Amino acid sequence: MNYNLNFNNIGESYLFAEVANRVAAYSKAHPDKKVLKLGIGDVTLPLAPAVISALHSAVDDMSKSETFKGYGPYEGYGFLRESIQNYYKENGVRVALSEIFVSDGAKSDLGNILDIFSKENVVLVPDPVYPVYVDTNVMAGRKVIYADATEQNGFLPMPDYKINCDVIYICSPNNPTGAAYTRSQLKEWVDYANKKGAVILFDAAYECFITDNSLARSIFEIEGAKTCAIEFCSFSKIAGFTGTRCGYTVIPHALEKDGMNANKLWLRRQSTKFNGVPYIVQKGAAAVFTKEGMSQIKANLDYYRQNAKLIADCMDELGIWYTGGKNSPYIWLKCPYGLKSWEFFDKLLNEVQVVGTPGAGFGNNGEGYFRLTAFGSKEVTAQAVESIKKLLQR
Amino acid sequence: MNYNLNFNNIGESYLFAEVANRVAAYSKAHPDKKVLKLGIGDVTLPLAPAVISALHSAVDDMSKSETFKGYGPYEGYGFLRESIQNYYKENGVRVALSEIFVSDGAKSDLGNILDIFSKENVVLVPDPVYPVYVDTNVMAGRKVIYADATEQNGFLPMPDYKINCDVIYICSPNNPTGAAYTRSQLKEWVDYANKKGAVILFDAAYECFITDNSLARSIFEIEGAKTCAIEFCSFSKIAGFTGTRCGYTVIPHALEKDGMNANKLWLRRQSTKFNGVPYIVQKGAAAVFTKEGMSQIKANLDYYRQNAKLIADCMDELGIWYTGGKNSPYIWLKCPYGLKSWEFFDKLLNEVQVVGTPGAGFGNNGEGYFRLTAFGSKEVTAQAVESIKKLLQR
Repeated sequence: MNYNLNFNNIGESYLFAEVANRVAAYSKAHPDKKVLKLGIGDVTLPLAPAVISALHSAVDDMSKSETFKGYGPYEGYGFLRESIQNYYKENGVRVALSEIFVSDGAKSDLGNILDIFSKENVVLVPDPVYPVYVDTNVMAGRKVIYADATEQNGFLPMPDYKINCDVIYICSPNNPTGAAYTRSQLKEWVDYANKKGAVILFDAAYECFITDNSLARSIFEIEGAKTCAIEFCSFSKIAGFTGTRCGYTVIPHALEKDGMNANKLWLRRQSTKFNGVPYIVQKGAAAVFTKEGMSQIKANLDYYRQNAKLIADCMDELGIWYTGGKNSPYIWLKCPYGLKSWEFFDKLLNEVQVVGTPGAGFGNNGEGYFRLTAFGSKEVTAQAVESIKKLLQR
Repeated sequence: MNYNLNFNNIGESYLFAEVANRVAAYSKAHPDKKVLKLGIGDVTLPLAPAVISALHSAVDDMSKSETFKGYGPYEGYGFLRESIQNYYKENGVRVALSEIFVSDGAKSDLGNILDIFSKENVVLVPDPVYPVYVDTNVMAGRKVIYADATEQNGFLPMPDYKINCDVIYICSPNNPTGAAYTRSQLKEWVDYANKKGAVILFDAAYECFITDNSLARSIFEIEGAKTCAIEFCSFSKIAGFTGTRCGYTVIPHALEKDGMNANKLWLRRQSTKFNGVPYIVQKGAAAVFTKEGMSQIKANLDYYRQNAKLIADCMDELGIWYTGGKNSPYIWLKCPYGLKSWEFFDKLLNEVQVVGTPGAGFGNNGEGYFRLTAFGSKEVTAQAVESIKKLLQR
C-alpha cells in the first residue's frame, strides 16, 4: 500500500494556527490585557428563534415512530429544496428542484465536487485565495495556476484569453478580500468559460451580504452561466450555521460534455459517498426561509453589516485603502507605513490588542494586506475600531 | 474541462431502485394487498429518550450567545470523542483520543478515506459486497479484485497469500451476509495485511449486534491491527441515527509508511474538505453512551435481535441454509428450490407480499441467495415469517 504522495505537495495549513500561537504567547505575557479578535470568519450571534423552534420540532419528530425519519434523500428533503428554489426565484433566478443538492456545507462540496472532474484539468484560482481551493486540488494531483488579484484591479482579476484552464474558482463577494464582481464582470467570466469549455465553481457563501443591486448574488443571474457554472452556497453566514452545518449546491442540467452530465455525475457521487444532511438540520435550515425566519435573519445580517461599516468608516477616516466592508463581512486593507502583513499583525496585537488575519497567509499577492472581519460582537468591534484609530492617527 | 471518465466504469446502482420498481408495479396491480418490507437496512424505532433530551438541550445551547457554538473541531468535540474512547475501553480496547475522528457516518468516511491512498493501490473486496466499497474505488480509477465468499467458507473468505493487494475491505458482522469473523480468523487477516504491507479498512457498523464473545467487535481487539487497520463505526444501527448522521473513524498513530502517517493525512484531509458534524448531533450521539442512553439503546437492539431470531428460527424450521441472524440484523439465505435471487424475489412478492433483497445485486456470488433484515417492526416481521413458512412448507 502507498499513501497519496500529493499530500507532500500541500503547504502546511499554518495560518490560523500561527495566529493562535502568537495570540496565546501575547496573552501569556500580558494576562491583564483583553485581546479583541476580528480574525476568524466565524459568526457570534445565536441561531434565530424561528430556526430554534424548527429544530426543537424536528427533534420531537425523531422521538415518535409515526414521524421518525431514517435515511433521507441523498440530495436533501423536498421541503428544503423547495425553499431554496423559492429563495432563488425571489432573486429572479429559476432553477429546477433536481438541480439543487443539499449538503453539509459549501466547503465540503467545493472539495468533493472535484471527484467528478478529470485529474488532468488545469485549475485557475485567484491569488490571494481561500486556501481550500488550492489544497483540495493539489491533494488530487491537479495543476493549479493563479490569476493575480491586486490593488490595480481592485482584487477582482478578469479573464485573460491567453490563459487556458479547465476549472475556475470564483468567490464573490470574496473571501478574503471582500471584493465583489458586478454583473458585467461576471458576464466576462461566463463568456470566457463557455469559450474555453471550462467550468466555473462559483462560491456564493457571502451572497447574503450584498445590498448593491449592480452586484450578482448568484452566477445564474448571468446569461450563459447554466452551461458553464456550478454554484455553492451555505447557511453558515446567512443564518449562523457554522456549527450547525448546512449548505447547497446548484448544478444545472445543461452542464454537460461528451455525453457526461455534471448533475447526474454528482448525484451518483453523493449517493455513493454521502448519506444526506441530518433531518433535524434540514428542518432548521428550511425555517430560515419562512417570513418570520427571514425577518430575524435580516436583523442579524444588519448587525454584522453595521460592524463592517464601523470598520470601513474607520479606514476611510484614516485614509487607508481597502476592499470589502460593503456587500461583504470582510475588510481587506492595505497595511499602513508599508508594513508587511505579519509586521502589521504584530503591531496591532502588541500595541492595541487587536487580532486580524495577515493577508500574506492567503497568497503572494496578499503580502502587505490584512483582513478584518465583521463577525465579532458590536462591543468588541467598536472597541477595536477606536483602538486602531488612536494607534494609526498618532 | 473533462469529467472523470472513471464514472463510466461504475455499474448503475439499480438494485434498490429495481426492488422499488417491482414493488410499485405489484402494489399498483394489487392495491388491496399489504406489502411486508424486510428489504432495506434502515431502522424503524425512534431515537431513545436520552438522545432526544440531549438534542433538545443542544438546540437550546444554540439559542443563546453564551452557549452558542460556531465552527467546531474538525475531528469532533472532546466530549463525544471521550465517550467513544470509553466505549472502546469497556470492550477492552485502548485508543488514544487523537486516534478518534467523528464523522457524519461510516459510509462517508469509507469513501472519503480513499483520498489519503495512492490511486495505484489494488483493492481487495469480498464478493458479495456492500456496493459502496467497489464504486468509490472505481470512481477513483483503482483496480478492484475479489475474494470469493461462498457457502463453502460460510461467506467468510480467508486470506490467500498468492494474492497481492494494498487495501482490504472487511465488514464484520457483514452486510449483506450477516456472517461475522471470529477473533482467530481476523488475526489471520491482520497477519496477512502486515505481511503484505496492506491496510485493512474495517467496517464495524454492525458491531453492536454481536453477543457471541468469540467474535471481535473491533479490529483493534486483534494483536497487530494498529499497524495495518482503520476502523469505521456508526451510530446508525446502534442508536437509529440513519437520518441523524453520525459516525466515527479510528486511525491508529502507528499506521504509517515512508514517513507518511495515516492519522495526520486524514486530519489534513478533513480540515481541508470537511467542517465537522453538527454540535447538536454530537450532543445527541454522546447521550448514547450515558448509562440511561445505553440501557434504552440495548432495549432497541433487543427488539431487532428478536426480529432476527424470528426470521432465523423460520429458516431453521424450513431447513433453509443461511448465515447471519445471530450477531447480525441480516439473514442471508439460500433460495429454496434452486431459484435464482430475482426469481425468489418475485415469488415472495407475488405469492406472500414479502419484500427482501436479491443477493445477486451484491455480486456474482450472491446469485441464488437472498437478504432479509431485522429492522422492520415486530408485527411486520412476524407476519412476514408466518407467510414465508406457509408458502415454503406447502
